[in-house]
Amino acid sequence: MRMSQLFLPTLFEDPKEAELVSHRLMLRAGLIRRLASGIYSYLPLGNMVLQKIIGIVKEEMEHIGYQEVLLPALQPKELWEESGRWEEYGEDMFKLRDRREREFGLGPTHEEVITDLVRREVRSYRDLPLFLYQIQTKFRDEMRPRFGVMRGREFIMKDAYSFDCTSQDADISYQNVYNAYCQIFARCGLRFRAVEADTGLIGGSRSHEFMVLADAGEDIIVSCTACNYAANLQKAEIGEEKDRAEKEKMDDLTLVETPNMKTVEEVAHFLHVTPNKLIKTLFYETEDRLVGCLIRGDQQLNLAKLQRLLGCSILRMADESIIRRVANTIPGFSGPIGLQDVQLIADNSLRNGRNFVVGANKPNMHYMNANIGRDFRVDTFQDIRIATSGDPCPRCEAKLKIGKGIEVGHVFKLDKKYSRSMKATFLDEDGKEKDIIMGCYGIGITRLMASIIEQNSDELGIIWPISVSPYEVLILLVNIQDKIQKEGAFELYEDLKKEKVEVLLDDREESPGKKFKDADLIGIPIRVVIGKRMKEEGVFEVSLRRTRERFLVKKEEAVGKVKELKSLP
Amino acid sequence: MRMSQLFLPTLFEDPKEAELVSHRLMLRAGLIRRLASGIYSYLPLGNMVLQKIIGIVKEEMEHIGYQEVLLPALQPKELWEESGRWEEYGEDMFKLRDRREREFGLGPTHEEVITDLVRREVRSYRDLPLFLYQIQTKFRDEMRPRFGVMRGREFIMKDAYSFDCTSQDADISYQNVYNAYCQIFARCGLRFRAVEADTGLIGGSRSHEFMVLADAGEDIIVSCTACNYAANLQKAEIGEEKDRAEKEKMDDLTLVETPNMKTVEEVAHFLHVTPNKLIKTLFYETEDRLVGCLIRGDQQLNLAKLQRLLGCSILRMADESIIRRVANTIPGFSGPIGLQDVQLIADNSLRNGRNFVVGANKPNMHYMNANIGRDFRVDTFQDIRIATSGDPCPRCEAKLKIGKGIEVGHVFKLDKKYSRSMKATFLDEDGKEKDIIMGCYGIGITRLMASIIEQNSDELGIIWPISVSPYEVLILLVNIQDKIQKEGAFELYEDLKKEKVEVLLDDREESPGKKFKDADLIGIPIRVVIGKRMKEEGVFEVSLRRTRERFLVKKEEAVGKVKELKSLP
Repeated sequence: MRMSQLFLPTLFEDPKEAELVSHRLMLRAGLIRRLASGIYSYLPLGNMVLQKIIGIVKEEMEHIGYQEVLLPALQPKELWEESGRWEEYGEDMFKLRDRREREFGLGPTHEEVITDLVRREVRSYRDLPLFLYQIQTKFRDEMRPRFGVMRGREFIMKDAYSFDCTSQDADISYQNVYNAYCQIFARCGLRFRAVEADTGLIGGSRSHEFMVLADAGEDIIVSCTACNYAANLQKAEIGEEKDRAEKEKMDDLTLVETPNMKTVEEVAHFLHVTPNKLIKTLFYETEDRLVGCLIRGDQQLNLAKLQRLLGCSILRMADESIIRRVANTIPGFSGPIGLQDVQLIADNSLRNGRNFVVGANKPNMHYMNANIGRDFRVDTFQDIRIATSGDPCPRCEAKLKIGKGIEVGHVFKLDKKYSRSMKATFLDEDGKEKDIIMGCYGIGITRLMASIIEQNSDELGIIWPISVSPYEVLILLVNIQDKIQKEGAFELYEDLKKEKVEVLLDDREESPGKKFKDADLIGIPIRVVIGKRMKEEGVFEVSLRRTRERFLVKKEEAVGKVKELKSLP
Repeated sequence: MRMSQLFLPTLFEDPKEAELVSHRLMLRAGLIRRLASGIYSYLPLGNMVLQKIIGIVKEEMEHIGYQEVLLPALQPKELWEESGRWEEYGEDMFKLRDRREREFGLGPTHEEVITDLVRREVRSYRDLPLFLYQIQTKFRDEMRPRFGVMRGREFIMKDAYSFDCTSQDADISYQNVYNAYCQIFARCGLRFRAVEADTGLIGGSRSHEFMVLADAGEDIIVSCTACNYAANLQKAEIGEEKDRAEKEKMDDLTLVETPNMKTVEEVAHFLHVTPNKLIKTLFYETEDRLVGCLIRGDQQLNLAKLQRLLGCSILRMADESIIRRVANTIPGFSGPIGLQDVQLIADNSLRNGRNFVVGANKPNMHYMNANIGRDFRVDTFQDIRIATSGDPCPRCEAKLKIGKGIEVGHVFKLDKKYSRSMKATFLDEDGKEKDIIMGCYGIGITRLMASIIEQNSDELGIIWPISVSPYEVLILLVNIQDKIQKEGAFELYEDLKKEKVEVLLDDREESPGKKFKDADLIGIPIRVVIGKRMKEEGVFEVSLRRTRERFLVKKEEAVGKVKELKSLP
């Protein structure tokens, strides 16, 4: 392609609205333009990168036996009512009525549609396993669309679905997609990590998120400094502290006045203790009971863990009236001593501690030197807190660390979540009707594109991995008015095209300064500069965008050099 | 691909809801399934055909210099208000509100979005011409969705847009796309015709529809039996009849009673004349005037022609109160004699006639032997009627004929229709600000797929042109339990794959009858049967789905024969 004909509106200045590196560079390099909040147009260069990524995704999905389908965006309300998700999705789903007042949702995901398709066609175990995928536009009315295509309201996803006879087969299907995703992200030039995750609104029994490691990420990843363990923050387990120190001696329980001091910091400061000597007592209500959670003052309760532990579907903080009834006090001064009729769950980290400060269940009063067992009961010790840097790994003895990531893929073992509610069954070899075991697997294609830029850029622009770059080589013709330069450039351009190298020729009548700036900005990995040196010394300057390594080669060696660089890992 | 693993649910019986051949066969051959009225899922085989068609379209668009972009489906109301089409589209557009109550339409087309994009980026004549296209899902809330994907509510289109400096350049762009479309439809194996068409809701100055010739078509094509002239019914012009016969003598004007006879047939029958001796007098209102149209009793008024002639944007039949005021009578008995204050437009076919029957502007009365000039005035003779078979061609002396077609493509010269209302301008070489001259060009990809089947099928199933067939070759392994047959089939399967032939192997444990039926139904153009003859005589039976031609070849010649047949035109 000749750049003089390419629709490539680059920007000199950083657009004001863009906070993230990828958002800024996608606008500046002419990959995207905003149409409305969270809604973007892809210009030619951006579309080329999308197509490259899609190509990789298709290859890897087909390699593991997935067949491509194309499902509608417009989805009837009735289907979503069958699965119970019409209400659950709420305002996150765009909803509309057709001219006959029938209600539709714009698909944010396709579990309902594909389960409906499969339940109508699959009859017997002989029709299974079945592996389907699509690459399609999804819609989600995000509360806060931001960061360009990173969190958009209209975006492209690859979603895949597996249908198996047994849970064991479904585990194999899950692992196959897991492996394919590792291949896809590696081929896209990404540093990433698969982390254990919660299943959330999608549901099911097991799930991993694929996280691109990046400071710009909105997700927190907990990972072990020694072994392979990694999970997202909601899911991250914490190993038990091996307490090798001798336990403190128990001191006498003492009631102290703590006037108007409600926060951990206020109480700790007033009583001259560190926050880790305090125990917070927090009350939560589920659909059918009330629990009290005991957490160290310097730690935070992990609601997702607590919900999994209790197996409840509703979980909310108890309001003041309940605290008054149960603990006979106001929030800020409740504590475990003397509590009755409420289950008390203590975090594991309290197991070995002594002489804590706890609320006294009297306004403006705390106890010092409270001890579990002696002064109050605990029904069970559990892992209910949010992991922090330095916590013990649940798998080995090393410490956990905290990092940030961008979720680009998610795999779910759905089990019977949709097949049961939507009656997707099959007849097994014995003629018995059974629920199909499902899995679902997503990759955010447009978000993946932004993530690649987050990891592959510098202060001057993008540095595309060659696998997803819109072109492999950029020929930078410094001065198109110079006949010798021009001839050299066009000759190389034709030679490279003949060799099936994807080449962009900057044949614009722009200043060399603008050309070099644009070259750095759009980030084609291999560059050939054709300028004065070509004229005077007969050499082309071949260089790599990433390392700035330069090679001066004779004209006749240029194609060979480019092909050599192109095939480097 | 092995058929035992392909998701290909074929149906024995014709689905009740399907009227059209293509609709029936797409359901039966497992290409599509219905999700809701006018909304379909594409199964693997259907998706493969779509991808093949898209591949052809992309090649031809890129060949004429078009760059691919991807524009959003969600489009803000404000943009459509700028062009004035928010109201114009009415209920045909799906409309919705986001969580912040902002209004959006689901794009039925993208003139507004692309004009907005281009007006922000294009500054100077040096940025032009610009040629962009996309392949994307469109939404249209059809009043009567039907015929499967032929008239769906969610469908795939290729839409392209040209931006030029001058009207002459825009004509060249128009012609380039016109030529590319001819290439695309020819490569898809279609018999088609480009016909002159109205610009309708899209607007502009010039337009052609590409019509696939098929009895199932909903569009009527008027074409010349001798020259190249073709147009759709709204647009079709009619040449002037060369009247070589002597004119009749004028008889005396006679008032006759025609009690309660209002229709042409009633009056003609009662007065013993043929309907072509009657003149209908029809009143129409525009935004600023009233006109009377005179049409022969056996002919029909063409409203689109009348509207173009009058240059009005509103055109509706005058209601009874107006007829009473102007003609002092009731509908059915109005006529041209004595009419004042209203322009009278007569169709060209009345120019040479004599002794007509006309309404007398009195209830239950007609005049016989009314003559133009002697008894009433006509302000102008024009071509305002609907063409019928046998009418003279407007370009040559031959006769027109009427046929049916399916519209699969449409090209428009938009001129300044969008650039002016949306202020898409550029600075020309003199530094003057000018409106960009636009064109837009669409192909209905999903409808194209159905049209291919309308023209390429028989009573047993589809007959894919090889260019769009999901696979090029089907190996029909008659009995997978027979070791020799099985080995032969799998060997050929691997050999063909090595040669990059797209091959489907029917390795299912089904009866031969079912296998042959499915083979005819899904319509892969080349078939290799491996059955008893292979075992007994060592020969493969290679055949063509379309002609049923059969070739018995030795095992080692099979690959060569397939490749030979594959490369046939």
